[in-house]
Order: sequence, then C-alpha cells, then structure tokens
Amino acid sequence: MIDAVDMDAAALKAATLVEALPYIRRFAGKTVVVKYGGNALAGTSEHDALALFAEDVVLMRLVGMQPVVVHGGGPQISEMMLRLGKQTEFVDGLRVTDAETVDIARMVLKGQVNPQLVAAINVHGNYAVGVSGVDGGLIRAQVRDPDLGFVGDVTSINPGVLRGMLDNEFIPVIATIGSDEHGQAYNINADTVAGAIAEALGAEKLVYLTDIEGLRRQVDDPASLIRQTTANELESLVADGSIAGGMIPKVASCVHAVRNGVHNAHILDGRIAHVLLLEIFTDSGIGTMIKGSEPQEGTT
Amino acid sequence: MIDAVDMDAAALKAATLVEALPYIRRFAGKTVVVKYGGNALAGTSEHDALALFAEDVVLMRLVGMQPVVVHGGGPQISEMMLRLGKQTEFVDGLRVTDAETVDIARMVLKGQVNPQLVAAINVHGNYAVGVSGVDGGLIRAQVRDPDLGFVGDVTSINPGVLRGMLDNEFIPVIATIGSDEHGQAYNINADTVAGAIAEALGAEKLVYLTDIEGLRRQVDDPASLIRQTTANELESLVADGSIAGGMIPKVASCVHAVRNGVHNAHILDGRIAHVLLLEIFTDSGIGTMIKGSEPQEGTT
Amino acid sequence: MIDAVDMDAAALKAATLVEALPYIRRFAGKTVVVKYGGNALAGTSEHDALALFAEDVVLMRLVGMQPVVVHGGGPQISEMMLRLGKQTEFVDGLRVTDAETVDIARMVLKGQVNPQLVAAINVHGNYAVGVSGVDGGLIRAQVRDPDLGFVGDVTSINPGVLRGMLDNEFIPVIATIGSDEHGQAYNINADTVAGAIAEALGAEKLVYLTDIEGLRRQVDDPASLIRQTTANELESLVADGSIAGGMIPKVASCVHAVRNGVHNAHILDGRIAHVLLLEIFTDSGIGTMIKGSEPQEGTT
Amino acid sequence: MIDAVDMDAAALKAATLVEALPYIRRFAGKTVVVKYGGNALAGTSEHDALALFAEDVVLMRLVGMQPVVVHGGGPQISEMMLRLGKQTEFVDGLRVTDAETVDIARMVLKGQVNPQLVAAINVHGNYAVGVSGVDGGLIRAQVRDPDLGFVGDVTSINPGVLRGMLDNEFIPVIATIGSDEHGQAYNINADTVAGAIAEALGAEKLVYLTDIEGLRRQVDDPASLIRQTTANELESLVADGSIAGGMIPKVASCVHAVRNGVHNAHILDGRIAHVLLLEIFTDSGIGTMIKGSEPQEGTT
Amino acid sequence: MIDAVDMDAAALKAATLVEALPYIRRFAGKTVVVKYGGNALAGTSEHDALALFAEDVVLMRLVGMQPVVVHGGGPQISEMMLRLGKQTEFVDGLRVTDAETVDIARMVLKGQVNPQLVAAINVHGNYAVGVSGVDGGLIRAQVRDPDLGFVGDVTSINPGVLRGMLDNEFIPVIATIGSDEHGQAYNINADTVAGAIAEALGAEKLVYLTDIEGLRRQVDDPASLIRQTTANELESLVADGSIAGGMIPKVASCVHAVRNGVHNAHILDGRIAHVLLLEIFTDSGIGTMIKGSEPQEGTT
Amino acid sequence: MIDAVDMDAAALKAATLVEALPYIRRFAGKTVVVKYGGNALAGTSEHDALALFAEDVVLMRLVGMQPVVVHGGGPQISEMMLRLGKQTEFVDGLRVTDAETVDIARMVLKGQVNPQLVAAINVHGNYAVGVSGVDGGLIRAQVRDPDLGFVGDVTSINPGVLRGMLDNEFIPVIATIGSDEHGQAYNINADTVAGAIAEALGAEKLVYLTDIEGLRRQVDDPASLIRQTTANELESLVADGSIAGGMIPKVASCVHAVRNGVHNAHILDGRIAHVLLLEIFTDSGIGTMIKGSEPQEGTT
Repeated sequence: MIDAVDMDAAALKAATLVEALPYIRRFAGKTVVVKYGGNALAGTSEHDALALFAEDVVLMRLVGMQPVVVHGGGPQISEMMLRLGKQTEFVDGLRVTDAETVDIARMVLKGQVNPQLVAAINVHGNYAVGVSGVDGGLIRAQVRDPDLGFVGDVTSINPGVLRGMLDNEFIPVIATIGSDEHGQAYNINADTVAGAIAEALGAEKLVYLTDIEGLRRQVDDPASLIRQTTANELESLVADGSIAGGMIPKVASCVHAVRNGVHNAHILDGRIAHVLLLEIFTDSGIGTMIKGSEPQEGTT
Repeated sequence: MIDAVDMDAAALKAATLVEALPYIRRFAGKTVVVKYGGNALAGTSEHDALALFAEDVVLMRLVGMQPVVVHGGGPQISEMMLRLGKQTEFVDGLRVTDAETVDIARMVLKGQVNPQLVAAINVHGNYAVGVSGVDGGLIRAQVRDPDLGFVGDVTSINPGVLRGMLDNEFIPVIATIGSDEHGQAYNINADTVAGAIAEALGAEKLVYLTDIEGLRRQVDDPASLIRQTTANELESLVADGSIAGGMIPKVASCVHAVRNGVHNAHILDGRIAHVLLLEIFTDSGIGTMIKGSEPQEGTT
Repeated sequence: MIDAVDMDAAALKAATLVEALPYIRRFAGKTVVVKYGGNALAGTSEHDALALFAEDVVLMRLVGMQPVVVHGGGPQISEMMLRLGKQTEFVDGLRVTDAETVDIARMVLKGQVNPQLVAAINVHGNYAVGVSGVDGGLIRAQVRDPDLGFVGDVTSINPGVLRGMLDNEFIPVIATIGSDEHGQAYNINADTVAGAIAEALGAEKLVYLTDIEGLRRQVDDPASLIRQTTANELESLVADGSIAGGMIPKVASCVHAVRNGVHNAHILDGRIAHVLLLEIFTDSGIGTMIKGSEPQEGTT
Repeated sequence: MIDAVDMDAAALKAATLVEALPYIRRFAGKTVVVKYGGNALAGTSEHDALALFAEDVVLMRLVGMQPVVVHGGGPQISEMMLRLGKQTEFVDGLRVTDAETVDIARMVLKGQVNPQLVAAINVHGNYAVGVSGVDGGLIRAQVRDPDLGFVGDVTSINPGVLRGMLDNEFIPVIATIGSDEHGQAYNINADTVAGAIAEALGAEKLVYLTDIEGLRRQVDDPASLIRQTTANELESLVADGSIAGGMIPKVASCVHAVRNGVHNAHILDGRIAHVLLLEIFTDSGIGTMIKGSEPQEGTT
Repeated sequence: MIDAVDMDAAALKAATLVEALPYIRRFAGKTVVVKYGGNALAGTSEHDALALFAEDVVLMRLVGMQPVVVHGGGPQISEMMLRLGKQTEFVDGLRVTDAETVDIARMVLKGQVNPQLVAAINVHGNYAVGVSGVDGGLIRAQVRDPDLGFVGDVTSINPGVLRGMLDNEFIPVIATIGSDEHGQAYNINADTVAGAIAEALGAEKLVYLTDIEGLRRQVDDPASLIRQTTANELESLVADGSIAGGMIPKVASCVHAVRNGVHNAHILDGRIAHVLLLEIFTDSGIGTMIKGSEPQEGTT
Repeated sequence: MIDAVDMDAAALKAATLVEALPYIRRFAGKTVVVKYGGNALAGTSEHDALALFAEDVVLMRLVGMQPVVVHGGGPQISEMMLRLGKQTEFVDGLRVTDAETVDIARMVLKGQVNPQLVAAINVHGNYAVGVSGVDGGLIRAQVRDPDLGFVGDVTSINPGVLRGMLDNEFIPVIATIGSDEHGQAYNINADTVAGAIAEALGAEKLVYLTDIEGLRRQVDDPASLIRQTTANELESLVADGSIAGGMIPKVASCVHAVRNGVHNAHILDGRIAHVLLLEIFTDSGIGTMIKGSEPQEGTT
C-alpha cells in the first residue's frame, strides 16, 4: 500500500527532475558567467537573497557546469566613502576616481563584497575562490579619460588564473578591479567586465541578474516585455531610445558577447527566488534572452 | 509584473532542485548498481516503465554518478523455450539447464532483453553499452550442481571492461551470463550477479527494483514495512522465517554487499514511477534501506 | 653437442619468426577490420575453424595490432526463423524484414553468433568484448526501402565505443544491427558495415574471409586469380560482369574503403587454416589484395 | 683584446652565479613559505622594500622553487579603525574583535594589503594570486576565547586551492583571515598561519622577515646572536625568558614546524635589501636558522 | 584450387607463429637483460652473428618486450692495448688497470664495440641507443682493490636514464664502464653489471649468451647438461667445484639475480643462430635455466 | 648591528642575481645548443676550462633551460692516429677518411672526448647522457665526395632520442658521428651538426665557443669587433673575404640557423671563464650575436 498524497508530491518532484534532464545534458561542461548585482535582489532581505543565489551557483557546478561569478559593489563603495569622510568630485556629472578613491573601491570590492559572496557559496563546501583582476594579471586596464582619474577600460583579459581554477573545479568569484602594467589599480564597470570574461572563456551563457523583469520594447508597457531577441533588434531599441539609462552597458555587453562566441545572453529578474535555476533547468522562459547567431550552413 | 500562479509552480520546481543539491554533491562520481527486474514494473505498461527507468538512469549519469544496470529475464527465457518447443526437466523441483537451454538463455538475455534496455537509454544519447559476463571475461563461473547442468555460481568478477566503459562515461548494461575458462556459458542468478558486481566496483549503492513496497517484519502486515535496517537484523528475519521465497537471494546479496564495501543497499518498489530518482535525489524515504556498517573509530 | 635434427626444426622456426619481423614493425598500432563470414570456413568443422580464427586474432593483438571483428549470421537467422515457424515474405525476390524478423535477427546475431566468437577468443584471455551497432550508438541506420521493412542503410558510424575498447586493448566483436534515433533496430548487410567501420577507424586493412580462393578475372578460370588489383580495375570487372553475385557488396565496400583512407583491402580464403596470419605475417601472397591509392607527390 | 676592468666585474658576477648553483639544485621544486611582516622593512621606504621583496620572490619562482607569501597587517587595520572612528575594547589587555572589527580586518587585509603585494610581484609578470583563508576553505578556524570575539585559532588547513595554484606555477599571497563552517570570518595571527601553511604543504623552509637581526641568547647582547639552533634549545630559551614578547608566536611556530616536516625555519632581518636571495642563494649565513631534526639512521 | 606444397610450408609457418602466441602474451611489457659476449658467437662470422642477434632483439621489442643489451669487450681492449704498445702489469696474476688502461678500455667499449652493436640493431629502425655507466650516472663504482687500479665494483645502479629510454621504446645498449663521485672511470666485469642492471630494473629474465651449450653437472660429461636448476643447486655445484673458471661470475650473478626479483636466468649457447628467439618464443628448452623462487603461498 | 663590509659584498651578489632575473624568465624552457670546441679554451688548462664549462651548463639546466652540447675532437683524433701509426692520405689538400680512419674517429669522439664531457658535468649530478649520431638514428648522413671516403653530409636529423632525454631533464652531449641506412659510420663537421641540431630542436640559441674574441669587420683590426649583426651582413662579409678560413662553417651554420627558426646565434670567446653564464644571464654584451629575423607584422 502506497500513500496516495505522498505519491502526488513525489510525482511532481520527479517531473521537475526529469524536466531538468535535457538542460543538464546540454550544459554539461559549459561555462556560465553570472553578473551578480547589488541591486538585483531587492524583493527579499539581502542575506537571504545571497543564500539562495549561492545554492543556485553550487547546483550548477554539481551538475557539471562551470559557473563564474562577477560582481561590482557601487553602493558599498559609496557608503564606505561616506564613512571615511571622503568627498567625491564630479566632472560633467561623472564621478572622479582619484588615487584614494580607487584604493577604497579596491578595498571594498575585494575585501568586503567579494568575501561575502565567497563565504555564502562555501557554506556548501570548498567551492568558491575570490579573485580580483589584479590576481594572475586577469584584467589589464588603461585610463578611460584622464579627467576621470583611475576609471579603467579593459584592454585584455588573461584567463589563465580562471582556467586553472575551473580545471580544479573551483568557482571563481571576481571583483572588477583591473591594473595596468605598472600595477596601478583601476575601477572598471562590472557589467563590461562580465561580458569580457564571458568572451575570453568562450562561455555558453552570460547572465545579468537585475532588479527588473526584463527588457521592454516600450519602457512603460509591462506587456511589451521581450522574451527573446537578437543583437540586431537590441541595437535598434537602443538607437530609438527604447532602451536607456543603466541598461545600456548591460545591453552593449550582451550584444558584443553574442557576436563574439557567447551562445546566449540573459537579463533576468534577480528578485525571483532561484531565478538562475528556473532559467537554466526548467522549460519556463524567464526574463529576456538574447540569442547568438546560429552557425552558418556550410561552416564547421 | 510577475504572474503569481507561475511563480508558485516555479517555486515548487526550484525547491525540488535545491532539495536534490546535497544528494548530487554526496553521490558525485559514485557508482550505483541497479538490478532491473522483469517483474518490477507491473503497475504500468512495460514499455512506459522502461522509458521512465531510462530517464532515471540517464539523469544519474548526467549529474556525475556512474550507474550500472544488471538484468535477468526469466519470463522471456521461458517464453522463448515455449515457442521453440523445448521441454524443461526438473530435478527436485529445480529446472535443469542443459546445453540447449543455456544457449537459449544467452540468446534471449543478450540478444533480446539487453538490447531493449540499451535502446531505451540511448534514445537520450550514446550512453549505454550492453555486455554479458562473457565480454572481457567479466563474470567467471563454475557449475553449481552437476544435476542442474549449466547453472553457474560466480567465482570471480573481472571488472576491467566495466571500468573502461565507466571511464569513458558509458552506462554498462549487463546480461547475467557467465563463462568458465573453456568458454562454456552458464546462466547465473541476476540478483547474485548484481551484488557481486557492486562489490567488485566498490559501489556506493546496490539497488533492487522489485514489485513489492519493501521488506516487512511481518509478511502479512503492511504496517511492518522496514524503512531502514542492518545486515544483522536481516539475517535474524531470514532465520526466523519472516523473509522467505524469492526475496532470499536479494536479501543475501544485500547482506553480503554491505559487509564487503558497498555503502547501502536498497529494496525499492519498481511500480512507483521514477522511484530511483525519488530515492536518490529527494528527502523521501522509499522502500527498505540496508545500511552498511560505519567505519570503526580508529580505522582509516 | 647440439642435436642436429632439432636444429633444423629450430632453424625453420627462427626463420618464420624473422620473416614476420618487418610485418610486425609495419603494422604495430594499426587497426585491421576483419569480416568473419559464416560460410568462410567450410573446409573444416566450424568449431575448429573458429578456434583457429581466434588464435589469429589474438596473435594480431599480442604483437600490437588492433584487430576488430565484424560478423553477420544469415544462416543462423534463417534457421531460427524456421524453428520459430516464422514465414518470410518476399518482395521482388527480396526478403521482407518485419518487426518480428528484425527482433529475431538481433537476438540471433547479438545473443548467439556474437557470444560464440567472443568466447572462442576469450579462451586465450579477457580480450574480446561483443557489441552491436546499438551499443554506444555505434551504427546509426535508416530505412533502405519501406517495402523491405527494417532493412537498414548505414547513415553514420559513431566509433567512440570502439575507440574506448581499443584504447583499453580489448578486441571489439561487432554484430551488425543498427538503430535509428528512436531506438528502432535494423538489420544491415555485414559486408557493408565492415567497410564503414574500417573507414571510420581509419583502418590499415579491411579483410573479408570468404569461401573462395580470391577474385578472378574470368569467373570460370582458376588461372585468372587476381593477386593484386586496384579500385579502378575492380569497377571495370563489375561493370563488364566478370564479378557478380554475392561478391558485389564486398567488392563495393573494398573499393569505397581504399578510396576513403583504408590502406589495403583483402579477399581471403577462409578455408585455409590461419589464413590471416599467413597474409599478415609472411611473405606469401594469398587471396586478392586491393591496393589503396598511394599518396600523391606533393601532398603531406 | 678583452677589456681588463670589465673582466674583473664579469668574474665577480660569474662567481655569484656559480655560488648559487648548488642552492638552486637543492631547492628546485621545493616550497618556501615566507611571512612578510609590516614592520620588517623599516630601513628603507616601504614602497622600495616591497619592490625588492617582489624581485626576490619572483627569482625564487623562476629558478624552480615554489614561494608562498603569508602576510598580516596589524598597523593598517589599526589605522583604518581610527579613520572609521571605531573604538577598541580591551579585555585583560587584549583587543576584543567584535563583528565590525573582524569585517574591517578582512577588508583591510584582503582588500588593501594583499593587492599591494600581488601588484608588486605582478609588475614582473602574471605570477601572484591573492587569496584569504576563506577562499577554497583554505583556513578553517574556531573561536579562541569568547571574551575576545572573532579572534580565531586554526583548526585545519585545506591546501587544495594552494596546490592548484602551485601546479599552475602561480605564487599564492595569503591574507590571514579564516572562517568557520557557517562562513563567519575570524582574524588569525599571521605568524601562526604561516607555520600551519608550511606544515600543510610540507615546505622546505619557513621564513619570517622581521625587523631584528635575529634571535639572541642574551637579549641585550648583540654578540649573542644565534646563527643556528634547534627546536630544543629554542624551547629552553623561551622557558628561561631569554626569548620573550612578540617573538614568542614566531618561535613557537618555528619549533612546531620543524618538528612536523618542515626542514628549516629562519628568522631573517627584513631590513637588509634582498635578504631572501642572500639567505637562499649564497653561502652567507644570515639571521637565525632553526634546523629540523635529521632523519634517524635506519628510517626510510 | 590451392597449391598443396605451398600449403605445407604455410602450415609450418602458421604453427610456429601460433606456438609463439602464449610466450608473446606472457612476456608483453617485460624487461629482458641480455649479456652479449664477445666469445659467444664463434660458430659463424662475427658480422653475421651480430646481424642475427640484432634481429632477435628487434623482434623482442616489436612484440612488446623491453630488451636491454649489456656488453663487455675484453678481446677488443687487449688488441687495442697491443696496437698502442701499452704494457700490462700483473699482480698475483691479475691485470693492473692503470689510468691509461682504463681510458683505453672506455674508449674501446664505448667508442668501438658499443656503436657496432647499436648500428647493427638500427639497420632495422631507430631503436638502439648506446650508453655507458657514466651516462646519467647509471653505474656508480668504487675501487675493488687498490693494487689493481681502476677495476671497479658496482656500488649502485641509477636506472633513471634506462627507464626514460624504455618508456620511449628505445633499446639501451650498455658499455660496462662505471664512475665514482669524482667522475673517475672504472672498468667493471660485464657479467656482474648485467645482473645488477637486471635487478635494478626488476627484469623478467637475465640471459647470458656464451660459447658453451649450457652448464653441466659433470664438466666433462655432455650428457650431464643441466636443463633447469635452482639457485641452491648452483651454489652446491660451485662449492664442490663442478662449476669453475669463467662461469663463476655468470653463475654468481644468476644466483643473486633470481634471489632479488629477477624471475629466471638463462645460460644460452650463442653459437646457435637466433638462440634468443628460440628460447623465448618456442616450446624448445635450450641451454640452462635458473628458476627464481616462486612466491610463497599467502604472500601478495 | 650588521657588518658593513659584508653588506657591500652581499649587495653586489644580490645585484647580480637580480640582474639575471629577466634572462632566467626569458629563457625558461628554451633550448640552447652549444658547440664546445677543443681549441676554445686555450687561456687556462684544459681540465679547468672543462670544469668551468660544466658549471655553466648545469646552471643553465637548473634555472629551467635545456642545454644541448655538441662536440668534435679533431686534435684528439689526429693524436690517436699518430699513436696507432696510421698514415693519412690527402686529396687536393683534404684528408681522406678511409674505413679505418672513420672507426678511429668514432672511437675517439664517442669513447674518449664524449665521456670526458659527460663526466665533468656529472660531477654535479646525474645530468649528462652521451650520444652519437648513430644512437636512435639521430644523425643520418651520406657521402660528401667519394674521393674523401667516409666524410659525411647531414641528410636528416631525427631528434626523437634528444627529445626523450630533454623531457626527462637530461643534458644530451653529442659526438658528431652519423650513419647511413646500412649502419656505416661517417665523420661529420661538428660546426655543421650543431646548427642542424639547433634547427631540428627549434632552439632559442646556437652558441659556438671559439678561441677568438668574436667576428671582425676587418680581420686585422680589433676595434672592428662585431657586437651584433644579421645573416645578410654576414653573407656580405664572407662574400668580400672579410670572414674566411675556419670561421666559414660556423658562420654558414649561424646564417642558416637564424633563417630556419633559431632565434639568435653567438660566436663567443671560450677563453673567458664562464663566458656562457655572462652571455646568457648578464647585461654584458660578449662576442658576436647574429640576430634572427623578427617575426613580420601580421604573422602569427
């Protein structure tokens, strides 16, 4: 005699596991770069959101994927500058990053935000290792605009240190500080770094966790949510102003990435619990997916 | 705006995936030997049952486990003997396996039952490879009783051919025909072979899929279902007659296996859809688990 | 004092071993695909012929070659159909292979003929492993002609399962059943499969063991035996009718193979004891050799 | 004609390189753990001292050694606490490390001191990678004394993340923050961590860079400088009060390390430029060396 | 129609190849150290004998064995000393090897005899590499007796250079010159070196090619030829004087070798063409075999 | 208190080690082929010069380079011919190398000069292994001019035996005897062999140790010493007669090598102690460097 109620719940569980099967198969051994944003998880307390995110990343690794986490930490930097009584100058509305500011940024990103992410993942085992772009020469940078100080543009990604970690089945967690050939640190936009890392690793997916439901064709119309799009359409939407503001660096990185070897890019709603799992392992379409161009017929 | 109903379903899916996380971690790289019985799946049509079973085995492999399938095929052998008009002799109530009978058994097991299992799994990819105990000298056997003819006892398992397949990430599917040093084939009890293979591979789990809910302390009392037990208790239950009949070889193999390096053995109800997944990847206790002895304090 | 008579015999033995030296050197690490035909060994009892053949294959492996055995089993299938009272339909003189017929073919090839070959080889050690085209997705097939039922054409060879076995120094023995993407089995001409396998493995040699002395330029003239020929000449002989009947699929496979990377193909007389050894390890020319085209001057 | 003066200089250079030869041979492939102390380099400007230290570490790696750098940063932590207006409590004269204090310590060590060391080394190439004890679960810690808050004792070292880096020829630079199983961070004495890491890696040498010339038998007598000593003598000197104060944790770690597989420990004067090179690659005896016990006669 | 006469010859050839089969299987991957003596091949011209020997060694390698050749060259050294007008001193009837003599010995062994052996083997391919005991520190030696000068005893064998060559499938050919820690060369008895090398490599066989039929129980009675014996019996025969003279170092090395891990030792008649092949690959018993002690029951 | 005088010497040592750092980095894993000439070291006793040279070669290996030594031995051959009373014929002023002469050359080079080099290096450890061009078929040669006898031109280099040694971290020392396909030995110009070996190994540097300061633009003007030049300029200097005599084969080999993948070639003054170390590990420019052409812009 088998208890009927248990069996219903069991059947649902089994169905979910079986639903995950083709995705596990498809993504085995594939690299997924996830940009984890400070604002992405407003719907719950930050601590809980981080714990849920950590579970998702660990599950991805356990089924054979190679997750890579990239993070910034603008709010935490601003808060520390406030506590240290450091004034911020602006040039044409942009923050000037002087030597002291970039040192504070490095300290907060590498010494405060990064270890929190690492610790949350490592509750499950010795998986995560935190690095910044200085470690192993990962992110080489140069001055973007002398008037802005030590704000950097990525000049090259040297993924050796990441590959070593992935080969040893660690999960790299990357603070987006780069350096030039003299060892000078630069603060770099984390959205941009995530895209550059994804390209350098030939990632299967580039995922941005945000605090919006996804991209919209008309910014004020929730019904215009874009489920799936292409690099070309996104460029049109930026050109006609439908996409604007803080989404621009993310969208630009998505467009560049899917044109440079990354298979798909995703803008996901980080406020949904376990949104990464749902996107990757279920049939549900969540957020906005930017599809890479399919290989042409006749190519290898 | 996020659809509330979808979110409930999504939350359930996510919960199931997260529930699976510690089990995936625990069993990564571990070998699980599953005895698939012809009678195990009476609750559904055989074809569907086989398809469900194949999904479970493939999912196990995709999350990094090493499933090994062992099967017999008594009913199919009997049916073929009937069709070929072959009479069966009995000695003291046991079937005599003459030269022609063992040839028929080999033909049916390796040529009919085994390819069906392989084909069902390979609908999902090039995973399964069928072997018998003759291949690579996997199962060495000797005469059990001259009066019974070519009924064999296992004398040794040579797991080289299985290790090669597991290293190449194939799923071995094993027909339980063995051979002696002259190449003579023997029919061998599949329950016994499953246990011997599990021991030779140092398997994490040995699983019997049966058509009962599990073992009972009192055979007529469904409430006496045993959720978890030990080798010692099982021996008592066999000694006092509480366990009898066709369960004896399974129980004896379970007892031997958990005393020889196999971590746990399981008697599961193969009539429950996806019972393997539920047992391995969820918190639900299903069927009867025989626990191996824990390592003693002070041992390595 | 050394016994003179022994020394003569010893000198002959030594001469044979030294004669083999350049052939062992030339073929070390090379793959040889041998099609073993049911009719090939009419000159002796089948059991003895099989034992001799097994010795040849084992010796090839022991000196560093990678033998692969391919077999069919038409007579054995016919006999089993007769025993099972299964009627055969014909369309335009060709046998229709309905679902039951292909199941019988699979059962006989994989469950009866294949284990006999494996067992004969494994008398010498744990060398041979039997597979069919279903295992590891080895032979993918499609319907040749809907009127003929489950008679298949090879669409692709997936040699992964063979490579794994060869790397582990096993001898694959292949039953020529293929499957489509739904797991449906097909019966496939064994001569054709042997050629396709040889091409997929980049074999050094493709060898057909037959019951004729070799190909002839005039079918009735024993003196017209062809010792050595080319793909082009063979095509002419087929075109003018000099080669006909059952030799056609073998000859077509030879022609295709030597034009697709296989170095040489051979039609040998399986009635000669140890004909494989004699062909491969001695200076004697035996049967008919089809030479692959030499690499062009100027190519790599 | 060869210029005489140049030849004298050249001969000196050659002599130094040849002097280094037996040391390069002896230490090839050996691990050297160097504790780099904030106070070690008072004789020069800190920036220059760091640059010289970086050259030494890079040279060690280039000749085939595996240097590992461990650092603390007490002064920098104190300075940051001052800037943040954070008061320090004391219990029996020891600083209480509350949750905010350990967060500041982590931030300063991992986010400020560590990247400076990494950047100084990486001026020479992509060699150094910074980690803390949280990364890959490197340093597991527990509360030392509840009254002191999050001051930790090392419970275990999990060197996997270091071995991966050493195998990939990176130079690990370790900030001495540990964590417990819940991910809570602890501040740990860097001298102690250096010894524990050296033992876990089976290091050839454990080196402390300090701001003293070496240990003395009489603390006030420069002539009593100890060139070479043993664990036993050191214990006597601690017991009779000849060694006291801040040297105690270093000396205790040296004693423990040479009794647990580390070959030699060294207390060096970090104020001497390139003191690491001189100690390792020249015949000069510098600072104090604590010799590990030689293998007993008759042991393997 | 098959030519009958050819078939008889073919059958003999096939029989020889099949006779070799179990020996090829047994010795695959095994090392055989062969001492090739200058006097061993008196029955034929030296050049032809060398060519036959080279064929044997190459065949051994081609079927997967690892032959290692050791040689001396006393007659060639004596001849060169004569040509150079170098007088030989004697002490108690033993030749004194002064510095000039050992230089001549090294020159003749490494520069004259060794390259002849290498060249003879390499007619068949790039197999042989000549080394002396100086190369890679292979043979470390010390003075046997100061009165004899640079006559050395083996103190240790450092087989690294041989293992590297065997791993790369080369055939080492070893001139028996050793050296001490100062680089001083010593002349060493080649029979002794062959035994020491066989032990250091854990060889399957140690073979001495001599100019006698084998050992005899009574030195003057050809009928007393010893086919098979043990270390114990050999010691008795030496003790009672039945074995004497130049056989002593060979017999002592055989006894020591089979008691230190070498499976069998052989004294073969090098005057028989291809005696190595006959001993190793045929059922014929040739010369004298000294059997190593079988592993005791109960040992691993 | 630190002794001031010691510190000056220490600072000089440290400066030299730091000066070596970029060179060690640049040449790690790179192959350097050094032609060691019998006349190169006239400034000191030959024994001491050899010891210094050995130190240089060992130091190169210890810092991760792959040194390969090539040597001839003309004077030693002449001396041995004199001792053996062997007359030399001349044809057009060139020495005729008859069969006996090439045997003597092989004996002296492989049996006398080569072991001396090997022994000098191996005083420092088991590093060097001596080979000639016959070993492993390293140098294949053919007759240059029938009138000159067994004087050979290089037809091909088969570097397999060298690669195996370099992989096992041995230092090959090569005597310049080659052989044809029949095993016949040839004496070959050592300068030419050094260049051919450097090309076959894709060496970073080809170095000739000579007894001149370097090449000169005007042969009689020491001030015209060429510090750095190109293949094109060298060809001009040969064409106009500025370079002549014994330098021609060296210069021709340098030109050929830098045009075939070798990065730089060097003519160094072997009379300067440790000239190899000074050239490779210091900023001093010594002797003449021939630069290889830089990779063109746009090439990989």
